Formats: sequence, structure tokens, C-alpha cells
Amino acid sequence: MRTAAIVTVGSELVEGLRVDTNTSEIARALNAVGLTVLEATSVADRVDLLTEVLKRTIARCDLVVVTGGLGPTHDDVTREAASKALGVPLLRDPRIESLLMPIAQRHARPEAAEQVLTQADVLAGATVIDAMTGTAPGLVIPTQRGTLALLPGPPAEMRPMLAKVLEGIDQSRPAPAQMGVVGLSESDAQLSAQRALEDHPGVRLTVLARPGDVKVILVAESTDADGLHAAADAVAGALGEHVYARDDSSLAAVVIGDARRAGVRVACAESCTGGLLAAALTSVPGASEVFAGCAVAYENRAKATLIHVPDELLRRFGAVSREVALAMAVGAREVFDVDLSVSTTGIAGPGGGSAEKPVGLVWFGIADGEDSFAYERRFPAMGREGIRDRSVSYALDLLRNRIRLR
Amino acid sequence: MRTAAIVTVGSELVEGLRVDTNTSEIARALNAVGLTVLEATSVADRVDLLTEVLKRTIARCDLVVVTGGLGPTHDDVTREAASKALGVPLLRDPRIESLLMPIAQRHARPEAAEQVLTQADVLAGATVIDAMTGTAPGLVIPTQRGTLALLPGPPAEMRPMLAKVLEGIDQSRPAPAQMGVVGLSESDAQLSAQRALEDHPGVRLTVLARPGDVKVILVAESTDADGLHAAADAVAGALGEHVYARDDSSLAAVVIGDARRAGVRVACAESCTGGLLAAALTSVPGASEVFAGCAVAYENRAKATLIHVPDELLRRFGAVSREVALAMAVGAREVFDVDLSVSTTGIAGPGGGSAEKPVGLVWFGIADGEDSFAYERRFPAMGREGIRDRSVSYALDLLRNRIRLR
Repeated sequence: MRTAAIVTVGSELVEGLRVDTNTSEIARALNAVGLTVLEATSVADRVDLLTEVLKRTIARCDLVVVTGGLGPTHDDVTREAASKALGVPLLRDPRIESLLMPIAQRHARPEAAEQVLTQADVLAGATVIDAMTGTAPGLVIPTQRGTLALLPGPPAEMRPMLAKVLEGIDQSRPAPAQMGVVGLSESDAQLSAQRALEDHPGVRLTVLARPGDVKVILVAESTDADGLHAAADAVAGALGEHVYARDDSSLAAVVIGDARRAGVRVACAESCTGGLLAAALTSVPGASEVFAGCAVAYENRAKATLIHVPDELLRRFGAVSREVALAMAVGAREVFDVDLSVSTTGIAGPGGGSAEKPVGLVWFGIADGEDSFAYERRFPAMGREGIRDRSVSYALDLLRNRIRLR
Repeated sequence: MRTAAIVTVGSELVEGLRVDTNTSEIARALNAVGLTVLEATSVADRVDLLTEVLKRTIARCDLVVVTGGLGPTHDDVTREAASKALGVPLLRDPRIESLLMPIAQRHARPEAAEQVLTQADVLAGATVIDAMTGTAPGLVIPTQRGTLALLPGPPAEMRPMLAKVLEGIDQSRPAPAQMGVVGLSESDAQLSAQRALEDHPGVRLTVLARPGDVKVILVAESTDADGLHAAADAVAGALGEHVYARDDSSLAAVVIGDARRAGVRVACAESCTGGLLAAALTSVPGASEVFAGCAVAYENRAKATLIHVPDELLRRFGAVSREVALAMAVGAREVFDVDLSVSTTGIAGPGGGSAEKPVGLVWFGIADGEDSFAYERRFPAMGREGIRDRSVSYALDLLRNRIRLR
């Protein structure tokens, strides 16, 4: 079994009302067991179109995975389309029908009850994967070239069934090697990684960017795990200090882990990032061992009353300044009584900028014991959320580097 | 021109390394000008596969929009595949070549320089859309049935070019009617909406769920704007107080807008939500007119020192309790000197739960002038981020309802 196709069924996908995330998840899983995905198609809830897509992909690919369209409504056409595409009849399975009967009976109208029971129609010759969290079972049917798998659309229902389908496909390629990279642009990370990979053929590079944070992924084109490992080491060596993780850990998780191991307690004071930094740190289970809290001092008066920033500094230098960033970090460290604190104060836009203090200007403060430091960044015009996200990554990296120095 | 297909080119899409967002965005735009998208396919960076997909979609659909694969690297195969699929040669365009020459000359190696210049290869008969932010131009070529558009992959480059392609396709359906709904599950919202739509044929319903917040979208299957409006009114009537917006505004934006109009200043105190509530409120441009700040009192000591929660209450009732939720809200209101404040304190999991206080238990406090109220919710097992997101929606809705009462 070598080739695969993914078909995601649902009109909302081709009307642009929902982003298709199943394809990405299923593609990762199929690639991980050594299959090559030739195409991934989204198609509307239309029997004619889906039947065509199925005929084509079944003829072309060894494994075809279909998600969606297995529910009880008139728009759920996957069973019918598969029946047409394979030329195989649908038969009511009495065991599944009896499992669905209590749900069917909740419906007053007989047509609605019958609709529920259509989920018990099974293609002749199919293996049934019983529903685990939803109502529709999955169906796995042999085809000329290999296998057709019909799975429910909702990811939580699809996931365990996909795992069952893939059991026994034992052509494992090594899992992709991932690393988290901070402080480098996507193109700089890509250039460095590509240069390092020149001595490592058979490894494909993908670089995914988020504001201020880049994920580098190396995929082996063979089953050579040692070769992939050597390539990953070479890339990590080239990227140096910018690599914060050699797996898919988030930057926040690395900070929390490093702080816990170093016995360091942390707090923060935020203005323009408005709580996003604290939210990132507290998204990590176990953050409470390390993180005391955050003062989101959004208005100037709160900077004074909550974290003791002197009014004088706010008046003389303004909220977005080295002086206030330092005072915010020092104040948070005192108020929360921690070892290390970080502050953010800046202009996320779209309004609020000026010639001297443009949108994208953000000051960061660090207070570490008796020491305190301030850093100025001028982020490009990347939108309010982009500037806030970029600032969170920068602040997390400041914490990471400060903890490493202890 | 009636039918369309979307083709997104890139191996990272079929390897599951990047989620395809272009399809969703382009599908929305195509539907908005009255086109029906028959299929949306992602395909690897392979000339043979892409040529096949193009041949098929060009034969089937009036408009085919392709994104990706127009760059300067060996993996960029879109121009070549389109040339093969259409049987039309590629010709070097001297004007575009001269625009790219400065970039090509930055490369020391002649092969790299030549690769850059391949972006000046144009299909005979194509209209060129000059690059606005990137380097690769878009190409629009007449086909047997209509049009093939080749656009760059990066959304910021693709977007303005897509707009140019769609100028002049004047079959406007009314834009979908959207509404934001809070406090109803996805299935309850769907049932209510469906019942309301029984008297409004020709309108399709899509319901998209996020934790605690549901988006209801109505799409007209014709050009009848009045009919769509009447259907939207009927659905909004059925959903009643749960409708927080009759457009795609976020719940946070509605709260900030309502607070501004009512002249109400707001602050919050968070524990388990860890800054997410403040982040949601501050994501709204202009939040500073209304929002003073937030105390993320993550550890118990911070609840006492930052927002004056009496140690006695923490000892007797624990952090996750009616008493502490009230004290947090009242304390935040005083410390930030605002009109209205909300607090969250709960157990987001995965650890920290017990028989009496299980994961998913969250208390919310509201302090409004002299009044204060507490609300208890027991969210189902939906993961740490699910419980936090659900809590943020609930807290925002408490604010929304409280402001409406003033």
C-alpha cells in the first residue's frame, strides 16, 4: 500500500464557512505510516459530485479516506455516493439499527426517526467500526486497489477510527523531527536550515511561521531514522541559540519547564499585550508551580496603583518608554514577591501611534533580583494581533534566556 | 460563469504540515460573487499530479483558481503544469524579467539567479497581474469553458490578485447573514434555527461552534436579499437573548461597544482563565476607553495581596468558591476604581480536581456598584483550553447582560 487520497465532505468547506482541519490531521497520520498522499479534496454535500470524486480516487489510490456526510440528515450523502461509486448495495444492519433505536425514538415525526436509522445502512462487504463518541459508525470497504474508509466528520469521532484503520499499515517512516525556533524570521530560518541540509539528502524541510515564533519540520523521505536524526542535529546546530525546543513543545511550555527546574518563580506586568503573555504561561499544565500572576495594567492609573509605577515617570516619559517598562517589571516583581518578572508596554495599533512612538514600538522590562533591563523593539506593521503575538514571543524568549543565565 | 474549482498547491498541505486556509478564503469570495464551488483540491508539488488536476478541473469548471507553486524554486511547478494541461507554451516576458533582475543578481550562483527569472515565464495568451507584495506575478488564462487563474500561495500576495480576478464577475448573491450566539449549545442553536427556517426555503443554515460561543450563518441560494433578511430576522427572533451580534462581531467587541455607549468602565480579576479574558477584551481596538485592567491572581497569595481577598475566605472556602469569586470581583472593582468588574476562579485541569470540586468547576463573580453576584458553572470534560475558553465566553456574557441592565 503506497498511495492515498483524502476526501472531506461538506458544503461548508467549499462555501468557505469552515476551514478544513481534518485533511491536515489525516495527512500527517498517513504520511507517518509511510503513505504518499496524492491529493486531498473537499467536496460539497452532493451525491453526484462525491460519487465522481470517489470513483476517481478509488481508481488512482491504494487507500482513500473520506470524512463527513455520515450523519442522519438529507445532506449526508456519503453512504449513497460510496454505494454508487463502488457499485455495491447498502444493507440495513440490524445490530447497528438496534443500537440507534433509542435515539430514533426520541423523534416525534416518523421521517426524522427513519433518518436516524439510515446511519445503520452498511455497504455490503464492509467492516464496521462502531461509533465511540458520536452515533454514525465508520465503514471500511475493500476496493480494486486497496481500501476505502468512510469516517465521521467531527474530529473527535474521526480520530480514534482513523487510528483503527491505520493499525496494521506497517510501513513506518520515522516521525518528522520538529523544532521550535524563536528570534529568526521565517526566511532566515529556512535559509540556515537549507544550508545545513545540503549534506543530508533525502530529508525534506518545511518551515511554518507564527508571529515571532517559527516551527521547523524535517520529514524523512525514506525509513532511515538515523539519517533523519543526523539531519535534525545539523539543522539545530546551525540555528544555535534560536532553537528553544527539539520537539513540538510551545515556547511557553519550555519557559515553565525551565523555571521549574531552576526553582525560579515568575510574574509579569502587561499593558499592550493585555493578558496574552499570562494566558500563554498559564496554558501550560502545572504553571501554578512557577507562575504567581500578572498585572494587566492597561490604563496608566492602574500602572501606578497596581504595580507602583511613579506618576512622575508616566508624565515625563509616557507609558511606552524604557523607564516605565523597567518600573513595571520591578513593581510586578515586588508586588508578586517572585524571583523574575517581565513587562510589556507598547503600541499595538491600529491607533495610538505617532512619529516618535509609532505603532509597533514595544518596550520590554526584565527584573531579576537586584538587576533590571529594558529592551526596545520596533515591530513592522503586522496588525494589532500580530504585534501582540510577536511581543508575547519576545517576552517569553527574554524569560527563557534570563532563566538560562541563572 | 457558474462553476468553480480551487486548487491549492504545496506538498506541506498533503503531508499535513500546514492547514490549508486559502481554500476557505477563496471559497467565500467565489460564493459571494455567485459561483458554485464544485471541488477544492490540495495537491503535492509534483508536475504530473498537478497537470492531471488542472486538466480535470479546467474541463469541468468555468473558473479554476490555483494558488501556490509560482515561486523560484525547483518545487514550484505550477507554470509548467498549466502549460502541459492547456497545451500552451511558456514564454519569457522581458518586462517582468527586467523587474526581477535586481533580485536575481543578488544570487552568487548562476543557477539560483536563473531560478529567480523563471518567475518571468508567462503562458502564451495570459494576462499578467503584477506582483504587489511578493515577486511572482499572477497569470490569468482563457480556457475552453472560461478562465484559469494562477495566483501566489502566500495569502497576502494572493488576496489582492484574487480581487482583481473577480472584478467584473457580477452575479452577486447577498452576502451571508451572520449572527453570534452565546449560551446555547451548537445542537440547540441548530435545532432552533432550523425550525425558524421552515418557512424560509432557499436559505441554507450553517452552524459553527467554538467553546461557549456559536456562529450561525445563513446563505441564500438565490439573489433574493429580502428573503435572506427575513430569514435572518426569523432565526434571530427564535434565538432571542442568546444573539449577541447580528454580524460577525466577536462577543468581546460587543461588550466593549456596549460598555462605551453606556459610559461604563470595566476591570477583571482572573485565576483559572489566566489572562485570556483580559486578552479578549483588549483585542478590541479602542478597548482602552472602557477597560482599566485585570489582576491575574494565579496563586492564592496574589489574590490576597493584589485584590484584597481575605486570607480567611481562602482558608475556609478555598480559591474555587462563591465567597472567593465575590471577593475577587469586589476587590478588582475597588483596586481599578471602575463601575463593573467580573472574576473567574476555577479548575481548568487536567489536574487539580476532586470529588467535591471536579475539573470544569468554575465560579464567576460580578461586582456592579454596591451589588455583587456569583455564578457557578460545571463545564463538561473538554480539556484545559476548552474549559478556559468556555469560561471566557461565559464571563463576557455576564458583562454583556450586566451592562444591558444599566
